[in-house]
Amino acid sequence: MTIENKTINTVRVLAADVVQKAKSGHPGAPMGMAPLAYALFLHQMKHNSEDPTWSNRDRFVLSSGHASALLYTMLHLTGYKLSMDDLKQFRQWGSRTPGHPEFSRTAGVEVTTGPLGQGIANAVGFAIAETMMAAHFNRPDFPVVDHRTYAICGDGCMMEGISSEAASLAGTLALNKLTVIYDDNEISIEGNTDIAFKEDVGKRFEAYGWNVVRLADGNDWEAVYGALQSTLNSDKPNLIIAPTRIGFGCPAKEGTSSAHGEPLGEENVLATKRSLGMPEDKFFVAEDVYAHCHDLMQEGVKANEAWNALFARYAEVYPDLAAEWKTWHKPGLPREIASDKRLFQFEGAMATRATSGEMINRLAALLPNLVGGSADLAPSNKTNIKNGGDYSASNRAGRNLHFGVREHAMAAICNGIALHGGLRVFCGTFFVFSDYMKHAMRMAAIMKLPVIYVLTHDSIGVGEDGATHQPVEQLAGLRATPGLLTYRPADGFETAAGWITALSSDEPTALILSRQNLPQYEHPDDRALKGGYILSESNKAVPDIILMASGSEVELVMAAKELLQEKGIDARVVSMPCIELFLQQSNAYRESVLPISVRARLAVEAAASQPWYQFTGLDGQVIAIDHFGDSAPAATLFKEYGFTVEHVAQVAESVVSRI
Amino acid sequence: MTIENKTINTVRVLAADVVQKAKSGHPGAPMGMAPLAYALFLHQMKHNSEDPTWSNRDRFVLSSGHASALLYTMLHLTGYKLSMDDLKQFRQWGSRTPGHPEFSRTAGVEVTTGPLGQGIANAVGFAIAETMMAAHFNRPDFPVVDHRTYAICGDGCMMEGISSEAASLAGTLALNKLTVIYDDNEISIEGNTDIAFKEDVGKRFEAYGWNVVRLADGNDWEAVYGALQSTLNSDKPNLIIAPTRIGFGCPAKEGTSSAHGEPLGEENVLATKRSLGMPEDKFFVAEDVYAHCHDLMQEGVKANEAWNALFARYAEVYPDLAAEWKTWHKPGLPREIASDKRLFQFEGAMATRATSGEMINRLAALLPNLVGGSADLAPSNKTNIKNGGDYSASNRAGRNLHFGVREHAMAAICNGIALHGGLRVFCGTFFVFSDYMKHAMRMAAIMKLPVIYVLTHDSIGVGEDGATHQPVEQLAGLRATPGLLTYRPADGFETAAGWITALSSDEPTALILSRQNLPQYEHPDDRALKGGYILSESNKAVPDIILMASGSEVELVMAAKELLQEKGIDARVVSMPCIELFLQQSNAYRESVLPISVRARLAVEAAASQPWYQFTGLDGQVIAIDHFGDSAPAATLFKEYGFTVEHVAQVAESVVSRI
Repeated sequence: MTIENKTINTVRVLAADVVQKAKSGHPGAPMGMAPLAYALFLHQMKHNSEDPTWSNRDRFVLSSGHASALLYTMLHLTGYKLSMDDLKQFRQWGSRTPGHPEFSRTAGVEVTTGPLGQGIANAVGFAIAETMMAAHFNRPDFPVVDHRTYAICGDGCMMEGISSEAASLAGTLALNKLTVIYDDNEISIEGNTDIAFKEDVGKRFEAYGWNVVRLADGNDWEAVYGALQSTLNSDKPNLIIAPTRIGFGCPAKEGTSSAHGEPLGEENVLATKRSLGMPEDKFFVAEDVYAHCHDLMQEGVKANEAWNALFARYAEVYPDLAAEWKTWHKPGLPREIASDKRLFQFEGAMATRATSGEMINRLAALLPNLVGGSADLAPSNKTNIKNGGDYSASNRAGRNLHFGVREHAMAAICNGIALHGGLRVFCGTFFVFSDYMKHAMRMAAIMKLPVIYVLTHDSIGVGEDGATHQPVEQLAGLRATPGLLTYRPADGFETAAGWITALSSDEPTALILSRQNLPQYEHPDDRALKGGYILSESNKAVPDIILMASGSEVELVMAAKELLQEKGIDARVVSMPCIELFLQQSNAYRESVLPISVRARLAVEAAASQPWYQFTGLDGQVIAIDHFGDSAPAATLFKEYGFTVEHVAQVAESVVSRI
Repeated sequence: MTIENKTINTVRVLAADVVQKAKSGHPGAPMGMAPLAYALFLHQMKHNSEDPTWSNRDRFVLSSGHASALLYTMLHLTGYKLSMDDLKQFRQWGSRTPGHPEFSRTAGVEVTTGPLGQGIANAVGFAIAETMMAAHFNRPDFPVVDHRTYAICGDGCMMEGISSEAASLAGTLALNKLTVIYDDNEISIEGNTDIAFKEDVGKRFEAYGWNVVRLADGNDWEAVYGALQSTLNSDKPNLIIAPTRIGFGCPAKEGTSSAHGEPLGEENVLATKRSLGMPEDKFFVAEDVYAHCHDLMQEGVKANEAWNALFARYAEVYPDLAAEWKTWHKPGLPREIASDKRLFQFEGAMATRATSGEMINRLAALLPNLVGGSADLAPSNKTNIKNGGDYSASNRAGRNLHFGVREHAMAAICNGIALHGGLRVFCGTFFVFSDYMKHAMRMAAIMKLPVIYVLTHDSIGVGEDGATHQPVEQLAGLRATPGLLTYRPADGFETAAGWITALSSDEPTALILSRQNLPQYEHPDDRALKGGYILSESNKAVPDIILMASGSEVELVMAAKELLQEKGIDARVVSMPCIELFLQQSNAYRESVLPISVRARLAVEAAASQPWYQFTGLDGQVIAIDHFGDSAPAATLFKEYGFTVEHVAQVAESVVSRI
């Protein structure tokens, strides 16, 4: 057995051991894909396990995240900080080797994967970010940004629509430094892929504008390596189709779906080792295998050193660019921007999508690494960076991304851009279509990526487009999503607070914005940054009732307060643009805004009622929309659904009299 | 001008008038697609405006739903119940002509569309249903089910991943009676489609296994008709690529994105009429145009009459099948099934995904029109109908659908199957991936389609697969969705109640099911059908505390009740499998379960807390999971996150002592 094949077989049996010990996991894919990973990690990719965050490393995405045992095994063999003990802790509480790869938990894991198809789009995001960074920072003889992005995916990723969206866009954008290896094992959980997936994948990707390399045998690592090398000069994104055998080497399970999602069984693990000619010891790696890997990894170490030298010279020749490089890689927002009062100033009635559009441009001027775009709704979402240029195959310096009508891929691509480092990214669509991209938003939240979602047309305020275009339950869904801030501003000041919050955060933020014009309020201080605050105080120390609302409904409760005053009822108005942020404030602050003793509480929001009961309790009330909307002018809808000053005041009165 | 072209131009100017009067809408697509719609509605399709629900009619899906003015204009001209006054009420409150086409609101509208890409998948569902119904009911010389499905879509639909998923599956399934016309106008909202969409759509569809017809000019209705005719003998699904001009006939806007989403303007409407050689009158249809349409529609009338005669003979020759036909087309559940106590019986610890799998098979034996499948997770979701056969290109009688790893298309295809009539349909995936299909579920809810979602692996109970596979916020999101029942059973009896509820409902139902085993409880009556009920009564008339939970956490609160009893605290246990259903019960019933006077309340659910505050108020408490999960054995996770009997009892004690 050659040392190369011995290494590949080591990966196979190690992955089988890892899953067997955990009594849980996916052995089949790692065993089939071992030659792909070997060629990629040890011969093709430029990376250095001693500096896993070296900015010019090649990026790798395991889109088929269930094959995590493959990735962990490779990271172990290639010298990343992942010990044999870590491998033995596979899928256990607090380990570095969770069931699916998790970004920031394991050195060398570039991105959290598992939900199929996401990884392909993440990889497209990495590739886009690379070109953007290169366009900005590279200078003649100084290719400080010059790396490739690799992904491995399986049949499942290929079936998911998100990968189609991402691949089509990658073709349009001619992202030639992107290479996807398709682990074509013809097995899915329900059986042979023929039952649901007979398409010609290669032809499909050619139709997208990709360079497609078809291998005869994905088990031949040299052929895989040859294909990888052939992509280096491609002018298109690259797909390598590698026919493999799931569970390779396991006599009882190879080529069957039973190899997919459960341990092989002790006996089958032994049989595999015998059939592959490997020692029967558990968690065994021969010294020559470690040495072989260590030797091959020296290429990456050297490349890293060479880059360090290159960047040092670059910093001398281009000190301003080197300084900017540092700035771009810093998370959060510089204090001088966060506290710049001019950013918060707006005048006259404006839709919050318009104040957001203005904020994007104010911020884009201050933050040259702010990029973004929309799923073909830029004019409606107001996401365009004026004079930012359009990003395209021929203009990598463009700051406006045209994602096409592809919400899901858009959000996952933004995850890749955010993961790459160096850029701040936002993306937009109609709020109701956040449904399409929800899972990519969840992935951003899991990974703590500060992606910003510009979600306009936020309620029945959409009007004539009707029920299909009017969000109802989306606010509840996003607010319930851990690690995602949902900010629905009432005016320009709050829009600015939302943007500043988003850019200061290390987590994703959804900005929920109105189509229709809203007034501007007086803001004596920046309490809007606390998520919930007293916008208009009651006359009495203890108000008769607390009216709370977010976004466009703040106007309504402000007017209702006036009306109630006439009736001798003294109301406090609480604007609550971001419930999650409010809940993060101190008990004392929250009590100052919503004293527990005041039980007369009314929340008003043109969306599902669910999020508000935590504040209104059993004694208060919620004016909300727990049904779908309708097609009519917005003013008609608000009236028909009880969103009038009179109705709000009337309900408030009944709440007060009840308590 | 020929009468054909006059009719086409009438459609164009009428659509422009309709949008102009509403001061809102999308004129460009209707004007460009008028020849396509003319060829389809008046020459190709077999339909009868006098009997819009004739079961053997050809189905039409306007996937680009924003072009609703085209559909309404065609329905008006072809004699559907849609008057000129209805057209004048476009996008107004209560009209038959909402901004996007809405199923059940307008005769002739087969499906609600607007969110892009959905319609393609709906059409695939219609086509699947047709083959299933044909396989069951047709007999030699009696093709009682023999119709085609047509869809029109635009660039946006083609870019959405859901259409890729659906098209790939349609190719695998060789749905040859499906024809999609692609309105290829090269214009998207942000500009020319080249900015984001350069792929070769025809080649992509050939890769899926479709028959692709490329037209030189989509404005030539005879060429369109020729292409449509050519698809009649195809053995593959058909795509007709029709190059068109958005806003055709409007000198100032034709071929530009400004024609897309706003009225042309009075002057441009006039200019259009002049340029097309049409009278300047508003809402004008010449008598010969009406007569032309009426004449052409007689084909459909005759076809309908012929089918009626055919079915009458069929009922004589095959009375049992004719009776079954009636049964299959009845909504709801026969009383003898709904009240069959044997369906509710389960013994021993079982996961609710297993009791659901058992229910599917019990019900499949009673309901031969129950079909369904999974997004490649049937063995995990337990969705397989034993002996039901696998639906495929060669077995249209199969009851098990293999959707592949395509959650979004799966759910939208099920919408099409449900809309077709005759079948009951369910589909399954892991609960966390309901995110991927959420928008199609929303569409089912908007349309009131009784699609059933089998969503297993419902919490951190998933265990080792980790955060990416553990739902947290999904319950909140679905519960906030109007018109969708979310049923999370605690045992086999409740699982049966969930299935009976779902099959009795005229709305969609999501069944949220555990991976792990759960015990069976005593159920003296069928209160589980009320969504929330007293599972275990307190000793006192007024309990010291009410413990409430759903699904797997019911076991926890039942045990906590025992522990509290030992400490002298008397608890009532409320099982709440379906909050939405509970909220539909009478005030008196709800008060009997959750008396307003009892403020000591504790809700326990391994998911986001948001839905429970409506019951726990400001004084109670919720034990929930407002963070992402982790990779570890499920028992470890439950313990680490406070889901232990001891912790629940301890929190309950503190709630009691606080009040």
